[in-house]
Amino acid sequence: MIREEDLSLVIDLYELAMVQAYWSEGMTETATFSLFFRELPEHRNFMLACGQQRVAEVIENLRFTSEQIEQLEQLNRFRPDFLEWLQDFRFTGSIRAMPEGTPVYPQEPLLEVDAPIAEAQMLESLVMNYVHLETVLASKAVRVKLAAGDRPVIDFGMRRMHGLDAAHRGVRAYRLAGLSGTSNIRAGLDAGLGVSGTMAHSFVQAYPDEMDAFKVYARLYPGTTLLVDTYDTLRAVRRIVDWLQEEPEVEIGAIRLDSGDLAGQAIECRHILDEAGFHDIKILASGGLDEYRIAALREQNVPIDGYGVGTAIGAASDAPSLELAYKLTVYAGEPRMKNSSGKTSWPGAKQVFRESDSDGNHVGDVIAGIDEEFPGTPLLRPLMQQGRLLAGAIGSMEDQEDWAWEQILALPELQRTLDQAPDYSVTISEHLKKLQADTLASVPSG
Amino acid sequence: MIREEDLSLVIDLYELAMVQAYWSEGMTETATFSLFFRELPEHRNFMLACGQQRVAEVIENLRFTSEQIEQLEQLNRFRPDFLEWLQDFRFTGSIRAMPEGTPVYPQEPLLEVDAPIAEAQMLESLVMNYVHLETVLASKAVRVKLAAGDRPVIDFGMRRMHGLDAAHRGVRAYRLAGLSGTSNIRAGLDAGLGVSGTMAHSFVQAYPDEMDAFKVYARLYPGTTLLVDTYDTLRAVRRIVDWLQEEPEVEIGAIRLDSGDLAGQAIECRHILDEAGFHDIKILASGGLDEYRIAALREQNVPIDGYGVGTAIGAASDAPSLELAYKLTVYAGEPRMKNSSGKTSWPGAKQVFRESDSDGNHVGDVIAGIDEEFPGTPLLRPLMQQGRLLAGAIGSMEDQEDWAWEQILALPELQRTLDQAPDYSVTISEHLKKLQADTLASVPSG
Repeated sequence: MIREEDLSLVIDLYELAMVQAYWSEGMTETATFSLFFRELPEHRNFMLACGQQRVAEVIENLRFTSEQIEQLEQLNRFRPDFLEWLQDFRFTGSIRAMPEGTPVYPQEPLLEVDAPIAEAQMLESLVMNYVHLETVLASKAVRVKLAAGDRPVIDFGMRRMHGLDAAHRGVRAYRLAGLSGTSNIRAGLDAGLGVSGTMAHSFVQAYPDEMDAFKVYARLYPGTTLLVDTYDTLRAVRRIVDWLQEEPEVEIGAIRLDSGDLAGQAIECRHILDEAGFHDIKILASGGLDEYRIAALREQNVPIDGYGVGTAIGAASDAPSLELAYKLTVYAGEPRMKNSSGKTSWPGAKQVFRESDSDGNHVGDVIAGIDEEFPGTPLLRPLMQQGRLLAGAIGSMEDQEDWAWEQILALPELQRTLDQAPDYSVTISEHLKKLQADTLASVPSG
Repeated sequence: MIREEDLSLVIDLYELAMVQAYWSEGMTETATFSLFFRELPEHRNFMLACGQQRVAEVIENLRFTSEQIEQLEQLNRFRPDFLEWLQDFRFTGSIRAMPEGTPVYPQEPLLEVDAPIAEAQMLESLVMNYVHLETVLASKAVRVKLAAGDRPVIDFGMRRMHGLDAAHRGVRAYRLAGLSGTSNIRAGLDAGLGVSGTMAHSFVQAYPDEMDAFKVYARLYPGTTLLVDTYDTLRAVRRIVDWLQEEPEVEIGAIRLDSGDLAGQAIECRHILDEAGFHDIKILASGGLDEYRIAALREQNVPIDGYGVGTAIGAASDAPSLELAYKLTVYAGEPRMKNSSGKTSWPGAKQVFRESDSDGNHVGDVIAGIDEEFPGTPLLRPLMQQGRLLAGAIGSMEDQEDWAWEQILALPELQRTLDQAPDYSVTISEHLKKLQADTLASVPSG
């Protein structure tokens, strides 16, 4: 594990090399860097922006310790007077960001940093790592939740998530994406998300008869969930029914199916349970589930009451990365842009306005210059000023969840399906278009 | 960030629930759990086992603090006497594991834990998270390295890796996989891998003329690499040549191309540099590279001297997860297995023998019972006994690298290509087959 105090050296070397260059050249003018992506991954109608607030908390406390300064010294790249400056480093700039849980589209800034250029440059990899991870995970999880509808989805992903930081931060992103619980104790406690979990096949196998395993659990954990697919699923359920009929004081909350033909087994299990009058015992399913399998189960009205989802959300398997970019768009009051590769980018500090119709449904966004006004809700909001988080800028998890789902449910309906939706309307303001043309015409060495 | 001391609650709730059940039932017999996968992901001829030693170090120090015990208390699942027991928890078992950097195939245990069942069960998610991440990342990176041949590959992945723990642990896995450097300072320092990095487009854009940016860097960092594709790549290179001809004392080590037609640009840049006699200035490439693009560049003999690779290795984009399983195979001396889902598994504690021909090339593996003997090198070696890492069981990073590349280079040649190779020969010993048949016949409630 990286220690929290070592976070400041989790940085790409080129950032500190550039910072030293700005510092040694006395280039201290304000820059604006913009965090955005150019294209949606396949299988995504929108991304759910997450991680902006969390990284701002980290930035507020970013410091270089003497131990770290010594380690940097040994790289033989940095001048002693620069390292002295670094030892006193504090971020003094501003951050404007979309609230966590905002659906976001290509070219829209999720976050903008305004700061002396060295400071803004230093944050590049850190900001990207934080926002990338949480946005990628939340954007997958929200699809799973939309597929599951009113049935709860529980995160089982820890074992196949990429490291412990992902498993921890991911759970907060999952909460915003609408998941109902997690198996990961630490992450659930920290994200305020319910922690749940029952038994593994190994537990069933450790007993000479699976009924012994079930009885131990029922005694210890009244209302527990029994994993019934270790040997013969239907036989296990029939034996549970017999046992419950003999011992009516035993409370079983649910059975869990984790392999094989989930639909067929769930229908047969429901039938066995209902015939014996156990209508209240729920059926949970897990094992290789993703949004498509859940949608198929729901379409067939398979009687499954909740889903445990692991790898699909944990690794965001079908789109584990997003081409997020952190680009200089203003320096010393002048718009800046890269123009060599045919990739479109828009210079200048920005605002995004999201317009709704009279029913509150979102009809489209305008990406505009920061000083422009358009109808709709401005999405980039002050989060940090002069290096300090603004009081009240970070709402409670409940507020963030409310915001996220208010936004998600106001999207055009097709955006919320698993099919590829028609593009959501995102237009660029005339001012930005002119700024781009003017900047292209005056590109320094172009 | 999770604090290191909070690691013990980064655990799936069901593990602690099972542990309490074993504890309250007095089930203290020894269990063997085996960590393996059933299938290779698409696009992988082998996986490179990594993370086993790192997680053993974590396990040796796993403790529950009073603060954590209080938090567990609040979940209302655990009995006070169990929590007392947990407060004194130490892992007392043994771990046998493949050395880090061993190529591994389906059904072969990467690691086996022998311990009182509660202790072995407790480790499930932690062991899986550690070994999964590092194995997935190393297995992708080794493909990139094999494609690059003798040209160095540098890790640029931090920004799009899944969290800071992945970005940190990943770099050690990359070192075993043959990468030559990383952009991530903390991770490079800790993995003993060279840290490198130059400049971003933003740095070039911050100056009125890109030549000013280049001159600042050349002065500060003699032998530096210049990023030449911000505006017009060939014009930038021609201007660099003019400048170097005027100021022959300036040292430039390389130019970097990061976008557009890398092959075409590299050829033209090489031509411009060579014509002016700058044969020693190298050309580095980055920007969306993976093993296939690198192989194509190499096949066309494109004059690129080194590769920076980010997202492809950082997220292991084409196979970001592996269906790693941690299964009970023995309890109280009896073989155990799950048999409901048609998934094959093999009961009993195991050893893997890797046989080589007289030239030292690997010809095939045998998965055997732990007490069997076969020709070849036994791959599972004692790593931990009675809860303590064995002295000398973890070699230096150099030893681990040597082992990894000795193993990789002894694989059949087709295994080391990007094409799908014929299956490497892995056979199951007759003893294990009989054990499986016997266990199936006697499955408790089957």
